[in-house]
Amino acid sequence: MENKEELLKHFEELKAKNIKIDATRGKPARDQLDLSLDMLDVLNSKSSFFYDNLDARNYGCLDGLGIAKEFVADILDVKPENVFVCGNSALNIMYDLISKSFSFGVCGSKRWCDQHVKWLCVVPGYDRHFAITERFGFELVNVPMLDGGPDMDLVEKLIKDPEVKGIWCVPKFSNPDGTCYSDEVVRRFARLKPASEDFRVYWDNAYIVHDFDFDNPVKLLNIFDEAKACGTEDMFYEFISFSKISFAGDGIAAVAASKNNIEDIKKSFFYQTIGYDKINQLRHVLYFKNKQGVIDQMRKHADIIRPKFEYLHNYFTKEISDVCSWVKPKGGYFICLKVNKCAKEVIAKCAECGVKLTAAGCSSPYHNDIDNEFIRIAPSTMNMCDLETFADVVCTAIKILSL
Amino acid sequence: MENKEELLKHFEELKAKNIKIDATRGKPARDQLDLSLDMLDVLNSKSSFFYDNLDARNYGCLDGLGIAKEFVADILDVKPENVFVCGNSALNIMYDLISKSFSFGVCGSKRWCDQHVKWLCVVPGYDRHFAITERFGFELVNVPMLDGGPDMDLVEKLIKDPEVKGIWCVPKFSNPDGTCYSDEVVRRFARLKPASEDFRVYWDNAYIVHDFDFDNPVKLLNIFDEAKACGTEDMFYEFISFSKISFAGDGIAAVAASKNNIEDIKKSFFYQTIGYDKINQLRHVLYFKNKQGVIDQMRKHADIIRPKFEYLHNYFTKEISDVCSWVKPKGGYFICLKVNKCAKEVIAKCAECGVKLTAAGCSSPYHNDIDNEFIRIAPSTMNMCDLETFADVVCTAIKILSL
Repeated sequence: MENKEELLKHFEELKAKNIKIDATRGKPARDQLDLSLDMLDVLNSKSSFFYDNLDARNYGCLDGLGIAKEFVADILDVKPENVFVCGNSALNIMYDLISKSFSFGVCGSKRWCDQHVKWLCVVPGYDRHFAITERFGFELVNVPMLDGGPDMDLVEKLIKDPEVKGIWCVPKFSNPDGTCYSDEVVRRFARLKPASEDFRVYWDNAYIVHDFDFDNPVKLLNIFDEAKACGTEDMFYEFISFSKISFAGDGIAAVAASKNNIEDIKKSFFYQTIGYDKINQLRHVLYFKNKQGVIDQMRKHADIIRPKFEYLHNYFTKEISDVCSWVKPKGGYFICLKVNKCAKEVIAKCAECGVKLTAAGCSSPYHNDIDNEFIRIAPSTMNMCDLETFADVVCTAIKILSL
Repeated sequence: MENKEELLKHFEELKAKNIKIDATRGKPARDQLDLSLDMLDVLNSKSSFFYDNLDARNYGCLDGLGIAKEFVADILDVKPENVFVCGNSALNIMYDLISKSFSFGVCGSKRWCDQHVKWLCVVPGYDRHFAITERFGFELVNVPMLDGGPDMDLVEKLIKDPEVKGIWCVPKFSNPDGTCYSDEVVRRFARLKPASEDFRVYWDNAYIVHDFDFDNPVKLLNIFDEAKACGTEDMFYEFISFSKISFAGDGIAAVAASKNNIEDIKKSFFYQTIGYDKINQLRHVLYFKNKQGVIDQMRKHADIIRPKFEYLHNYFTKEISDVCSWVKPKGGYFICLKVNKCAKEVIAKCAECGVKLTAAGCSSPYHNDIDNEFIRIAPSTMNMCDLETFADVVCTAIKILSL
């Protein structure tokens, strides 16, 4: 079925099927959300809410319940005093930190709103990251993703510019291409010597426990261990979210950082809120208990999500490996197909057929996919039946446009 | 016991009692928090989470669940489309709105970070309000609180200055003096014609249903009804929080605003988060059901909190009405004693005796209580036994320092 006529005929047949598939966002599937339902039973009207000499139902405790800090610290392998536990959204903490840097500076530095700020964006990357820094009017600078992480030669060169104030990173199962940063890349991050003292690495460890195969998990070096050895701990904010562990948008989120940064954060967030939802923090801690509890849950997530990625990987390997490339998915929520200058056209063609993909350019700053090459695939919410149709549509469209 | 010697002797006796009372913050008492415990049973592992064609456990719905908007609209007597339901903290929404105005402007106006901004502060007022606008470097301008609301002659004069961009208001049971804005004051707010088009009234209706006597509730005019008649709806943001209805810091919060403002808010908050905790929104709606459900709960709160305020009011009337004044409390969380140029000294004296009051100056911008006259009393967490001791200490200190 490799000649154009047959492909076009097959595509018309697909169109006639009245397909409606939305693969735009990396959302957990319903059966994944069901996994954490028991969490809603751990606190009820008979429960105790007193922890750390504090009533979780009352005001106070800006940086989160002590047991919540211990819990997050266990997962991130840092100390509880280096953790600030927040509300339901890690993206919101990132936004807040950038907003505060913009308005007030970082740890006493000059506020960014009076400066021309440049921000490094690993491409392909996460659209919601890029949107934040675009919103603040920063100049977004592309850094290509290579095997095992960003182009570190380029990063090391760019940070010599004092206008460069930060970089977005998703170090494990990067959104959207699934790359995991190699030991060497993590170490090169730890050794960075930026010209600007208020340069910060936004280390969004969104998929820290989102492996597909826990018998052979991907091991990411602990950025703070490496940074400690280089005296660069103040350069990193590490983020974690429970949106893809418990409930999407109803979980808890946290930032880990050096002593200096945590002090700065506490001082700065004081103005913003009296505290985050401690009952939900408590609910998470009591349900998961510790890192092992989270891993046990993530195994179940993996059992649901892995087959979808395996299916797509195998399908793509069979059908389109000669005309595009991708990283074999070992975890996370996305596959990123790299096609030959026809991403926009493929996405439009799939839309003709009722298959919605994330908008063309979404994985690049300013939605400008310079080589028109990235297609972000978010298969998590599809069932196996939809997945088959989806793969067929995407591969047929890619083949047609690659001819 | 009205001569100095006896007063001093009595004060020494009180000191010997080793009192430890913290009356610094307006927190709900434990038995108030117990009132909402059943809310933690309305959602459990067997519940349905599907509302408005949406799974409350998944991403989406930036402005809140439809049923949450209807619920809040019912309480505020506005339309659901004029409501944006958020997370656990109304203070955080206020901070966010000011932060966004600072960084990006309001509805297309010039960003405030490049301008000298003045902000009107009704005095006495809420320290956490003042702290936000102080943090952003605005020039805080005092407006005295009179009977029935702020000095509107002064407000009307000050807003002719285009540098004046906003005003903090707690229109019902104002923090800390308990004043409720009269119909005339609300109408004068609605009629304001500020020089600056991006001037906003932060109408923090924190105590909207926090009456002590629901058979004779205090009626505040609906600001949006009045504003509509004057074509000034865009001038108001109204805030509501459940922190003193369900759980403090674990409730939900919302902002009500005009169509233009809601559009601006949605556009602007898009960058900040994918959405707020919808499970907690759902929990609140299912538990309280509607405005009447909230009122029923607030009657129970009133039964707990009213006796404390009545006790203090009667005690103060008997003991110190000749040397200080206050508004007879009909709701809310505070009494504000107005003493004769000795507030700081009274607060220090009480501290000597183990009674912690909110820091002197807290109710004024820059903590500068010009006439050294305001003492904020937060009796809610005390039991009746502590309350008696507390009243004795405060009154003795005031009498000594008024001699």
